[in-house]
Amino acid sequence: MSLIESEWFTEIFERNTAFSVRYSKKLYGQNSEFQKIEIFDTEVMGRVLILDGCFMVTEKDTFIYHEMLVHPAMNVLKDPRKVVVIGGGDGGAVTEIVKYPGVESVTLCEIDPMVVASCKEYLPEISAGLADGRVTVVNEDGAVFIRNFEQELDLVLVDSTDPVGPGTVLFETPFFKAIRRSLKRGGVAVFQTESPLLMESVFRAAVKDLRTVFGSDKARPYVATIPSYPGALWSFTFCSEERNPLNDSPRTLVPFLEGRLRFYDENVHRAAFALPVFVRNLISGQR
Amino acid sequence: MSLIESEWFTEIFERNTAFSVRYSKKLYGQNSEFQKIEIFDTEVMGRVLILDGCFMVTEKDTFIYHEMLVHPAMNVLKDPRKVVVIGGGDGGAVTEIVKYPGVESVTLCEIDPMVVASCKEYLPEISAGLADGRVTVVNEDGAVFIRNFEQELDLVLVDSTDPVGPGTVLFETPFFKAIRRSLKRGGVAVFQTESPLLMESVFRAAVKDLRTVFGSDKARPYVATIPSYPGALWSFTFCSEERNPLNDSPRTLVPFLEGRLRFYDENVHRAAFALPVFVRNLISGQR
Repeated sequence: MSLIESEWFTEIFERNTAFSVRYSKKLYGQNSEFQKIEIFDTEVMGRVLILDGCFMVTEKDTFIYHEMLVHPAMNVLKDPRKVVVIGGGDGGAVTEIVKYPGVESVTLCEIDPMVVASCKEYLPEISAGLADGRVTVVNEDGAVFIRNFEQELDLVLVDSTDPVGPGTVLFETPFFKAIRRSLKRGGVAVFQTESPLLMESVFRAAVKDLRTVFGSDKARPYVATIPSYPGALWSFTFCSEERNPLNDSPRTLVPFLEGRLRFYDENVHRAAFALPVFVRNLISGQR
Repeated sequence: MSLIESEWFTEIFERNTAFSVRYSKKLYGQNSEFQKIEIFDTEVMGRVLILDGCFMVTEKDTFIYHEMLVHPAMNVLKDPRKVVVIGGGDGGAVTEIVKYPGVESVTLCEIDPMVVASCKEYLPEISAGLADGRVTVVNEDGAVFIRNFEQELDLVLVDSTDPVGPGTVLFETPFFKAIRRSLKRGGVAVFQTESPLLMESVFRAAVKDLRTVFGSDKARPYVATIPSYPGALWSFTFCSEERNPLNDSPRTLVPFLEGRLRFYDENVHRAAFALPVFVRNLISGQR
């Protein structure tokens, strides 16, 4: 069976595997200064955002990614006030963060203004949080922008693309060090750290470098299933010198989140840190 | 970008999504009495078994599926003696089961002898357990075969294909009842119950029917990531009138499994039963 190019969008991953979605309409297609941006309407995955040929957001499964990027750290912090998101121009992470009434400011640093603009237009539910009065959007290089902060932030979320193109610097040690420096005492940073199944070496290197920067037992990976991403078994890494995501984990979900989340709760929190044996083995000897 | 049909195998799921793997060689392709069987050699996913156009086994990720089908129940049972596997002609489930020295007999009931023969030839590591002296292979309809047993089995594993073609009866209530009848007191049955994300209605119906047969709180779904299956977020359902997979869960892995598993351990066991909120909601009101 073949896929007709005018009907199917296909992401080919490293010339070896591919994920395709049949679309009913191409809603948007532009080349920005940084990347090619496309948005399609599809029946089963809803609207999908593609950057440089890679699935970034689908309305069907993006709740898993954004909830698992945001809520483990937010719930451990209990009452974070000042948050920075690097990348994440779709606004999905911000939309989760502004659910917490105690948050005072959220700065989204997305290098590409066309990503933000196109998502505001075509992915209104996912980007809804960007309209919150506590949110500021800046279009700068996240690796430069983060250097403006010193012991100031409660939470930094690195919602990067893969380590190619503009996303490369977001996987490098100088950036990790700048993030550590930006955090208040007791602060937390969470990084998306790719698939331990299909991007084994990127995952290993990221965790190793984060452990070098934050401390050998202070960078803790956790996992979730993101069906539209290559490998589907996806990782995030929770970094904090003072907070332990398991010892300080929530016993119950904060009441204002009841009924507002589709993936995350206090049990899913603990489960996410129970790493599959092969994932644990990939990073053993690194602590 | 397009996928050349002589280089890529593509599974199209319900005309809406597709997963493709580039292959170096087609090793096998035959139509059996029941289905079309194909085996390809691929670089990134290893050898892959395709039945009627659907990924069944890949050397890259099948350890997740087979370990998560087999070990949660085996570890709760502690010392199962008599096991039946319905479906699973690739032998992967049996290969996990024969790791337990206390097991006295394993009967694999696979309707299609050509699946067993082709997997023995082309997937030797996955099917290795079939050569164990305690294993018997019968080629019968599992829904009929299971009626031979009454309060006799410690464990039944239903390693079915999707509920189409020969696999349909394995999702029907009379089959579920026959399985319940086949189990000893204290016995366990585990069913693969499809993706709660992309096959929502099949998942819901299967859990509902299993709860009707085994008891409202005696059929407990759990999840794992299977990247090569549609939806990737996959479910199994643990059914037992006497055993509770969490209360009776292993505190430590049995010593003879140390270092022999790549996905499952006692923490992964508990984590698998922490259902994502939307999965719990899909089946709430059913207990």
